[in-house]
Amino acid sequence: MTATTPARRPGGPLRPADLRDVRIDDAFWAPRRETVRTTTLPQQERQLRTVGQLEALRLQWREGDPREPHVFWESDVAKWIEAASYALATQPDPALEASVDEAIALLADAQQPDGYLNVYFTVVRPGQRFTDLRDAHELYCLGHLIEAAVAHHRATGRTTLLDVVRRYADLVAQELGPGGALEGGYDGHQEIELALVKLARATGERRYLDLARRMLDARGTQPYWFEVEEVRRGTPGYFGSHFPDRTEQAQRYREYNQSHLPVREQQEVVGHAVRAMYMLSAMTDLAAEDGDDDLLAACGRLWDSTTGTKMYVTGGLGSDPSIEGFGAPYDLPDRDGYAETCAAIGLVMWAQRMTNVTGDGRYADVLERALYNGVLAGASADGTCYFYGNPLASDGDVHRHEWFGVACCPPNLARLLTSLEQYAYADADDELAVHLHVAGSVRTRAGGGACVDVGTRYPDDGAVRLTVAPEVPGAAWTLAVRVPAWSARTSLTVNGDPVPVADVLDRGYVRLHRTWAAGDVVELGLDVRPRRVWADPRVASATGRVALQRGPVVHCLEGVDHDVPVRALLLPRDAALGLEPEPVSGLAAVVADGLAEPDPPEGRPLYREEPPAREATRVRAVPYFAWGNRGQGTMAVWVREA
Amino acid sequence: MTATTPARRPGGPLRPADLRDVRIDDAFWAPRRETVRTTTLPQQERQLRTVGQLEALRLQWREGDPREPHVFWESDVAKWIEAASYALATQPDPALEASVDEAIALLADAQQPDGYLNVYFTVVRPGQRFTDLRDAHELYCLGHLIEAAVAHHRATGRTTLLDVVRRYADLVAQELGPGGALEGGYDGHQEIELALVKLARATGERRYLDLARRMLDARGTQPYWFEVEEVRRGTPGYFGSHFPDRTEQAQRYREYNQSHLPVREQQEVVGHAVRAMYMLSAMTDLAAEDGDDDLLAACGRLWDSTTGTKMYVTGGLGSDPSIEGFGAPYDLPDRDGYAETCAAIGLVMWAQRMTNVTGDGRYADVLERALYNGVLAGASADGTCYFYGNPLASDGDVHRHEWFGVACCPPNLARLLTSLEQYAYADADDELAVHLHVAGSVRTRAGGGACVDVGTRYPDDGAVRLTVAPEVPGAAWTLAVRVPAWSARTSLTVNGDPVPVADVLDRGYVRLHRTWAAGDVVELGLDVRPRRVWADPRVASATGRVALQRGPVVHCLEGVDHDVPVRALLLPRDAALGLEPEPVSGLAAVVADGLAEPDPPEGRPLYREEPPAREATRVRAVPYFAWGNRGQGTMAVWVREA
Repeated sequence: MTATTPARRPGGPLRPADLRDVRIDDAFWAPRRETVRTTTLPQQERQLRTVGQLEALRLQWREGDPREPHVFWESDVAKWIEAASYALATQPDPALEASVDEAIALLADAQQPDGYLNVYFTVVRPGQRFTDLRDAHELYCLGHLIEAAVAHHRATGRTTLLDVVRRYADLVAQELGPGGALEGGYDGHQEIELALVKLARATGERRYLDLARRMLDARGTQPYWFEVEEVRRGTPGYFGSHFPDRTEQAQRYREYNQSHLPVREQQEVVGHAVRAMYMLSAMTDLAAEDGDDDLLAACGRLWDSTTGTKMYVTGGLGSDPSIEGFGAPYDLPDRDGYAETCAAIGLVMWAQRMTNVTGDGRYADVLERALYNGVLAGASADGTCYFYGNPLASDGDVHRHEWFGVACCPPNLARLLTSLEQYAYADADDELAVHLHVAGSVRTRAGGGACVDVGTRYPDDGAVRLTVAPEVPGAAWTLAVRVPAWSARTSLTVNGDPVPVADVLDRGYVRLHRTWAAGDVVELGLDVRPRRVWADPRVASATGRVALQRGPVVHCLEGVDHDVPVRALLLPRDAALGLEPEPVSGLAAVVADGLAEPDPPEGRPLYREEPPAREATRVRAVPYFAWGNRGQGTMAVWVREA
Repeated sequence: MTATTPARRPGGPLRPADLRDVRIDDAFWAPRRETVRTTTLPQQERQLRTVGQLEALRLQWREGDPREPHVFWESDVAKWIEAASYALATQPDPALEASVDEAIALLADAQQPDGYLNVYFTVVRPGQRFTDLRDAHELYCLGHLIEAAVAHHRATGRTTLLDVVRRYADLVAQELGPGGALEGGYDGHQEIELALVKLARATGERRYLDLARRMLDARGTQPYWFEVEEVRRGTPGYFGSHFPDRTEQAQRYREYNQSHLPVREQQEVVGHAVRAMYMLSAMTDLAAEDGDDDLLAACGRLWDSTTGTKMYVTGGLGSDPSIEGFGAPYDLPDRDGYAETCAAIGLVMWAQRMTNVTGDGRYADVLERALYNGVLAGASADGTCYFYGNPLASDGDVHRHEWFGVACCPPNLARLLTSLEQYAYADADDELAVHLHVAGSVRTRAGGGACVDVGTRYPDDGAVRLTVAPEVPGAAWTLAVRVPAWSARTSLTVNGDPVPVADVLDRGYVRLHRTWAAGDVVELGLDVRPRRVWADPRVASATGRVALQRGPVVHCLEGVDHDVPVRALLLPRDAALGLEPEPVSGLAAVVADGLAEPDPPEGRPLYREEPPAREATRVRAVPYFAWGNRGQGTMAVWVREA
């Protein structure tokens, strides 16, 4: 695990594919993306209209109106615009586009003459803008607006939103820049940093990168910005009443938003998980932009801390609900953890960047783990209800909800699924990397231009067939196809000729460097037989237990499939694992001859001198992401071994 | 388990032995009691002097003095007097007696002309007495003062304290009696009810019983006393700021002090565990006094709820630290529970009463379980440090303390150990019951008077030899000797002749009814081989785990005995259990060939496709009560099975 990070340099960091260069025509993903487009996005639009996020942009709120705008309402609107823009990039939808235009027009109208744009500080607390960077989420919201603007610009070619955010970003750059009133400041909820990298790439303006880097480098230096700011402000801040112990627990709250140490000096991932993931995404982006290997090494250390000691087997992050964030190493309770959907999404975002800067498949393995499990579980199969936290076990007391008071997760999930193209493929002039196995096609700039068709029923089947169509005859380039570390037996042929995988396997990818001819076919065979996974013995919730995984998909037991609560089930270590169709997921359930320890009859003593009786039973494990779609019941990822 | 309760009637309920009728000369208990007498009682006296409980009785506190008396400080003094009085009953100790006299004199001087006695409401909040029965602990303190007074009177024959508490009790009887200002009231922390039974027995005054019964019968009737009281008072009460959600969570707070339902209608034990145990002790006392089988049936139902679904294997009670009390059935977390020492003591007190009214050994089995485990663990081996909560597992983060801000447990433990005689023996005119196997002797009124000598090294050895010396020739009476349910093979001889145990075993006792002759010898052989104990499968913390018990003594693993943290240890189900000396407890450690899953080397992935490596290791389990005496380390009662 503890690897030094660099590698990948020849043609520079890989860049995510442009959405319009990819076609996704995949049995697993296409229906899910269609559900997002036709169900989730309209449902979220209705929520934004009902709850008030859109209406608030009219700046009509007055003292006494119960629908007081929330400081981070702009981010809900922004993530929805971003998600919708990705959808529009690959599929015209005039109604959706009209709604996006309406939202953008409202944002543009709400913008103040000097570029400032935040409803709360315009109508509720005018005159207090930028006085509470720690709690008030202004730059967080700007970050999401920038991401939305860049997505909208790339999808439609229009600059209606991009112009808005540039004016706001320029104001912020002035305030936080050298000599500005907020010089040395940074936001309490990281997000703007990674957004500024996108803005710099979209506009070609290096100064946005510089601003991002200044904020990252200032973070955690002493005197602590937020503490100086609090003294200057003279009030405990927007969330002061939520965190009454902030003064006594100063270090805990510095860690909460990762401002306890300069980012390059942080050794252990701590605090609010989403904040950490967004920050680390930006750090990785900047390391890639500038070839900053010192920064990349810091990312690598925190990667090991995250995925080596603080990540659920589902790719979920955050075991401490009180901070929506990380606990101690190996502290990963199954029932009482957190694993916020947004944190798994953040891990996908960071893993994508780590993969592209290093070319190393171990990062993409985590990307895939989080995507197929911790992220996908966040929404119901019909795309209308959401988990905020994603526990790995339930006594039957949790279920998905239609919406939340803090509604960060639903549009975050939508924007990830509508931009899946960016996570599946990345390229440079010398290489096309296939990170995820998704049926469809991709056009790459590698070798001067080429198309690759991908045929697969992954993850239900491990066969992946790639057909290459180069545009520039005679160009040599690398087709890198990811081989997940979990694939125990992998086969490879090129034009039907077997190739020993070991000969071409390089840090998690079969890297085929050749002069490609039209119709060249690469066939990869991944081993998606169901398998057992064990946790490090320090993970108490998994002690004596095993998880079942098939390909990237973690499975779980649900009470609805069994006559006893899932806690009573055991899986003998030598039980053969079979498969049967599983309709909710469209994949398969893993089935095995197991055992049950049913509850004893009424009136038996609590402690007995004989072990609990066991009986044979069939154990059925369904994909974790599909759980909770057949009524509310018990669930467990970690199954007792017998 | 779910048994109907009555039985025992012929000679009426058994009564606990008088301390002066018993001599304890026991290898296990005598040194522990000597430690209490010579170390614990003086140390606690120093604490009472240092912290201020004794000084406060001088009523010199004035506004601004930082040592503001606490509402329940009298109870600390009272429990210490009670413990000291028990010690004085069997062993003269002029220095100790002088301290007791000093404390009693202070109490007498602090008593107000009308009999009222509570420092807080005399000097800190004068004029507010009896306005906050829910929180203010006045009657709780009076209860402990009564218990102390009765103990002191029986030990010394003097009435210095008894006179004080009778005047106070008479004032309370007037206030709470028919037509009194507090008619229908009862205390938020039950205790006075059981104390009034003791006072009635000590004085022969039935009206104290009537007062206890009135309080118990009023409890939980509507309108709820405490809620009416709060409205009348107009303030949230002494603990209002501790419980800001008391209005929204009304039912939870009614359950907290068991005032949610009339006591006879309660089906499930809920709320603060010590309050529940004290209340149930009084209910059982009153059922015995009046032959009230309906009340006894309520006790029986709540007994089944307590010991059948909410008791730790150590006899500890209370899994929810937020209420110092009971959680849901089977909710018995090992690390994060509560199991307050006082609650285990309360269970011993209740079990003693249930045993004596029914003559049924299943209650005494629980008494013994709580005594040898949940209670004894409460103090360090040297008698100077205490646990308030007694978790069944530790990651190394808990240890005993010298004292507590709320210091209920230390003197409670002292008074139990100094009055062990009352728990070991009980009798009536027709029977002497030997509940606990303790070497020494007892004089009984059974058969007109008799002495029984007991020789045993229990619990280290299962042989118990009883020698009878009747005082009245020709009288026939029953010697009932308890056979714990855990004794798998029990032998019995009378004067050397084997008696089939099954022939004379009656609800947990071998009941030998005969005309005893001087020198008759009964020899009981209990099976104290170490054994495995399993919990009901609904107890999540014990799933897939086993506990080791030897006689009444529950064992645990300690990190100090192993090369790995105890969480890494496994005990194969077929591993033979051996014994070796264990110096801290003076008993034996259970040893076995076990397995360990050591932490993997640095840098291994968090999730792996091979199970944790195992290696052979020796597993050593020491008596639970003796844990934490060899430095601060990891500990677990429930051991993983392999």
